[in-house]
Amino acid sequence: MQEGFKMKNTLVNRLDFSKGLIPTIAQDMEGKILMLAYSSPESVQLTIDEGFGWYYSRSRTQLWKKGETSGNFQRVKNIYVDCDNDSLIYLIEQTGNACHLGKYSCFTEVE
Amino acid sequence: MQEGFKMKNTLVNRLDFSKGLIPTIAQDMEGKILMLAYSSPESVQLTIDEGFGWYYSRSRTQLWKKGETSGNFQRVKNIYVDCDNDSLIYLIEQTGNACHLGKYSCFTEVE
Repeated sequence: MQEGFKMKNTLVNRLDFSKGLIPTIAQDMEGKILMLAYSSPESVQLTIDEGFGWYYSRSRTQLWKKGETSGNFQRVKNIYVDCDNDSLIYLIEQTGNACHLGKYSCFTEVE
Repeated sequence: MQEGFKMKNTLVNRLDFSKGLIPTIAQDMEGKILMLAYSSPESVQLTIDEGFGWYYSRSRTQLWKKGETSGNFQRVKNIYVDCDNDSLIYLIEQTGNACHLGKYSCFTEVE
């Protein structure tokens, strides 16, 4: 567990999953948004416990540690929650690329 | 319509709404994330047409122009879409505060 993350252990109880999985933004330390994925209570707890980005895959319907197959892990440096307690930001240090298409970010400008 | 936004008119057809409304991140020009809301095909089209942030309210089940009651409009400067075509970033200039609780951002650090 990362130093300081013990204090975030009450986060899961505070989150509102009544509308389903919680959209979670992965943002790097320079402010760039790398991806948006979904959180379940279990994936949030694993993120807090390990200090690495865990999510819940809607397509595979299972917990998913970012980088578990690619090696492109996300070290989570801080967590932000919104005023409705139903969306999250993981402030991360990304190893390699975040996008499975081989790009740093999943987001591209709409032409 | 903002100059240049005509080119984004094919965006709605490209988006994947098969899993429901699309989470949409409002980010300011300095990289700060202000809020996460949801988009329907109609709200995306209105955003493209007007150059202001429109969303679809899950709680009120209706289209919603950010700032229509508060005056805190969002001028949309650019739009980004992710590799799955099911999440968006609106790069915005926020008038006043984005959060209905009177703060600039809806997100706060988890203590």
